[in-house]
Amino acid sequence: MNFRYALNQFCLLMLVLSGLLALLCVGAVIEAWYGNVTEHGAEWALLISAGVGFLGSGVTYRLTRTKRTTFGRREALLLVAMSWLIGAALGALPFWIWAQGWAESAEEHPFASFINCYFETMSGLTTTGATILTDIPSVPESLLMWRALTHWLGGLGIVVLFVAVLPSLGGSGGKKVFRVEAPGPAQEGVRPSIRDTARMLWIIYAGLTIVQVIALRIAGVPNWYEAICHTFATLATGGFSTHNASVAAYSSVWVDVVIVVFMFLAGVNFGLYYQIMHGRIRNVWRDTEFRVYVGLMLAASAIIVLSLVMSGRPIATTGGETVDATLGNALQYGVFTTVSIQTTTGFCTGDFDSWPFATKAILLALMFVGGSAGSTGGGIKVIRVWAVVKIMWGELERAFRPNVVRPVRIGNHAIDTDMRLSILAYVFGIVILFGLGAGVLMAIEGGNCDFKTAATASVATLCNIGPGLGKVGASQNYAWFSDGSKAFMSLMMAVGRLEVFAILVLFSPRYWRGD
Amino acid sequence: MNFRYALNQFCLLMLVLSGLLALLCVGAVIEAWYGNVTEHGAEWALLISAGVGFLGSGVTYRLTRTKRTTFGRREALLLVAMSWLIGAALGALPFWIWAQGWAESAEEHPFASFINCYFETMSGLTTTGATILTDIPSVPESLLMWRALTHWLGGLGIVVLFVAVLPSLGGSGGKKVFRVEAPGPAQEGVRPSIRDTARMLWIIYAGLTIVQVIALRIAGVPNWYEAICHTFATLATGGFSTHNASVAAYSSVWVDVVIVVFMFLAGVNFGLYYQIMHGRIRNVWRDTEFRVYVGLMLAASAIIVLSLVMSGRPIATTGGETVDATLGNALQYGVFTTVSIQTTTGFCTGDFDSWPFATKAILLALMFVGGSAGSTGGGIKVIRVWAVVKIMWGELERAFRPNVVRPVRIGNHAIDTDMRLSILAYVFGIVILFGLGAGVLMAIEGGNCDFKTAATASVATLCNIGPGLGKVGASQNYAWFSDGSKAFMSLMMAVGRLEVFAILVLFSPRYWRGD
Repeated sequence: MNFRYALNQFCLLMLVLSGLLALLCVGAVIEAWYGNVTEHGAEWALLISAGVGFLGSGVTYRLTRTKRTTFGRREALLLVAMSWLIGAALGALPFWIWAQGWAESAEEHPFASFINCYFETMSGLTTTGATILTDIPSVPESLLMWRALTHWLGGLGIVVLFVAVLPSLGGSGGKKVFRVEAPGPAQEGVRPSIRDTARMLWIIYAGLTIVQVIALRIAGVPNWYEAICHTFATLATGGFSTHNASVAAYSSVWVDVVIVVFMFLAGVNFGLYYQIMHGRIRNVWRDTEFRVYVGLMLAASAIIVLSLVMSGRPIATTGGETVDATLGNALQYGVFTTVSIQTTTGFCTGDFDSWPFATKAILLALMFVGGSAGSTGGGIKVIRVWAVVKIMWGELERAFRPNVVRPVRIGNHAIDTDMRLSILAYVFGIVILFGLGAGVLMAIEGGNCDFKTAATASVATLCNIGPGLGKVGASQNYAWFSDGSKAFMSLMMAVGRLEVFAILVLFSPRYWRGD
Repeated sequence: MNFRYALNQFCLLMLVLSGLLALLCVGAVIEAWYGNVTEHGAEWALLISAGVGFLGSGVTYRLTRTKRTTFGRREALLLVAMSWLIGAALGALPFWIWAQGWAESAEEHPFASFINCYFETMSGLTTTGATILTDIPSVPESLLMWRALTHWLGGLGIVVLFVAVLPSLGGSGGKKVFRVEAPGPAQEGVRPSIRDTARMLWIIYAGLTIVQVIALRIAGVPNWYEAICHTFATLATGGFSTHNASVAAYSSVWVDVVIVVFMFLAGVNFGLYYQIMHGRIRNVWRDTEFRVYVGLMLAASAIIVLSLVMSGRPIATTGGETVDATLGNALQYGVFTTVSIQTTTGFCTGDFDSWPFATKAILLALMFVGGSAGSTGGGIKVIRVWAVVKIMWGELERAFRPNVVRPVRIGNHAIDTDMRLSILAYVFGIVILFGLGAGVLMAIEGGNCDFKTAATASVATLCNIGPGLGKVGASQNYAWFSDGSKAFMSLMMAVGRLEVFAILVLFSPRYWRGD
């Protein structure tokens, strides 16, 4: 294991992050200048963080300088793990510094404790969207912008961004990193060179971003700042909002529609957009995962809308008045929630914790499924779930026809036994981690965390969704958890975002021994 | 699919069951004669049931007579499924008839509704031990004896018994049936001929039965009837007791010790006893599954006893007085409960629902693990769990060493990829069924069944344990469930006992089409 080289590359990445912080600081200063704001806490916080970042990683970079060597799988895993676990700490710095120096009633403000800042940043980078903020507007806009930006960076992967912009890793190293961080089962890049692939992905991503920002403004989002923040949160399937009431604050059908559309697009394999750009639109509908993804979403939405209408209970309470279960409202809130949960975005308009049992059961199931491979969505990924369904069916058939061997096919790829085994192992691993997670949370929190809350908090962090049920429901937040639980859930988010192994291997002695 | 022949063989089996009912009836009559009992409801119920059984299956047997043909895997699956699903109905008959004609306040008695009787019998045959009886002694002894006997018959498998005593199936057919019904992953019989194997297993089983009955009498169980009933329930890892307070009714250390010992023995692969009988004692300790089984039990017991002592809460309340958390009591109650749960017997002495969280978490985990393959214990089986642990570890290693292929070995058998896949698929299937089960129960019961109750009821029936937590806890019963839930849980018990596939394939159209 070439620890030195991995660390060296990691420092480069931290320099990039620090650069982004500095950039944001400049923007904030200009903003403040025009708006002649007198309060400059956020700018200072950003500046100091950027300085610390530059200094720390710069010095370490010099110290660890080494001749460029081959970049193995272990190094890739280590680089990615470090980037997320330590990168989140750097990202948390501005929040913490601001709370120390400038927040009113600093000692009460959630950001006063570093673990809260770390949790929030990890939740941002992993596009989970679980927040510990009880009063979001109490945080300056430039910091909320940084909070939203963590979503956007984490969506496609900070290291993938790094691969796209920096040459230093070289092709093979880049590919390895890409494999580890890009969501979904290992796939061949859409372009021969991995760097081209990474660039292409980021270009598509940026394009969608611009379109959505404009669309949101047209739909009636009052200013560019909010439009940009919600766009970042949408396309990364993150879920951070600038309002305590999340998207419900706009109570506008058009905003809901725009966000639903872009959540859906963010949950699609970005490779398909590449196909479209090259006029191969037919391939999109030929894609099995895309079909299952759409079918699942339509079916789930239909059932949920129906049961909302049939139950007749009020769907939500926005701004004091209750929303009745008319077909129109059921459509608006039901579809929004379904898409928001399946894409693992976690924006909320209705408090689905108060919805009928059937709807909650379906939403819980969707939390595990998540988005498509190669999208910014979290969860197990549609393709894997589909594969598991086929595998299980095949095994059932073997019970009464032991000698027939039917190959399991996805689209026109047959998946061999080894592949089947690792897919099944992956999904089973998620289920086990989910169970352990719930257990650990209950053990740490003791009486003040019921099973429903623990279980949904576990899946909501592991699958990078955000809201759950009970005390982490749509209208709640994660502030009340103890520091221990917050640290644990931060780890769960990283484990989930990096597809389990990148983090778990760090606990395996063999990985370090490197025999 | 040779439906006719399968049905024909099934009728033979029903004749055997009817014979057992008749035998029990004779016994009851003699018993009543000596005890000059005037109340003969139970005898009549048994007699009528036997009559119905003989008539129905006798006639059908004649009608479906056919020349002996080959007995395929489909037929085997069908025969076993029918035997359990319909056999339970025949076994439920005496309870129901008795309640109709002779129970005091018949309309209130649980056995007055047939679904209750069916649930109770299925719970008996599958060695689950979940009861719908609120006042057990209200049922005549001869019927409680039949109730215990269903455990004993189901323990090794009614069809396996059938294979052992009846020649008609022939070797290959017998082997197929054996494969389907014998607990645990398919294993080579301990004897070359499958009939010899089946006989051998039943001889060992009967031997252990005699020894335990005597041991219980010596330990202070007041009469032979109770000794026999509890022996049946112990060796089948069933859990039915003749007392409402279960084994706690004796509040005797010695009875506890005897039962713990025989629960442990019942959870061991019976093949090992065959080894011992042939002086190959060394093979026992060489057996990987046996080691894991013992190790797991010791570790779990140790932790549970410790946390009971440390928590200092009262462990149980037997006969009004509370049992304090002294080391002695913690040992007695902790070990008993651990062994009772891991072997999936489900006898209760302490109400573990009131125990510390850690103990409940461990017990819940043990419910899934269950006994050894080839034992009467339910659950996933130790060997499978052990295999899954090794498989998952192997997959984790592949994350950072994709090209290294390390064979997964259990003892000195290497298990190939196909085997690994089907073991993992099986365990994953159990987890999915567990989740679905909990969901269905909550959906049926609505508000009056919390998640904890639904989840533990699901695993307690699927893994054939009996007691769970919450409203199905150690001191509770299953009487309060709606008929729908009871029917569903009866199915769950059968699915669990027959290792999922034998029942599930019945839902697959391909199985019936037989292409």
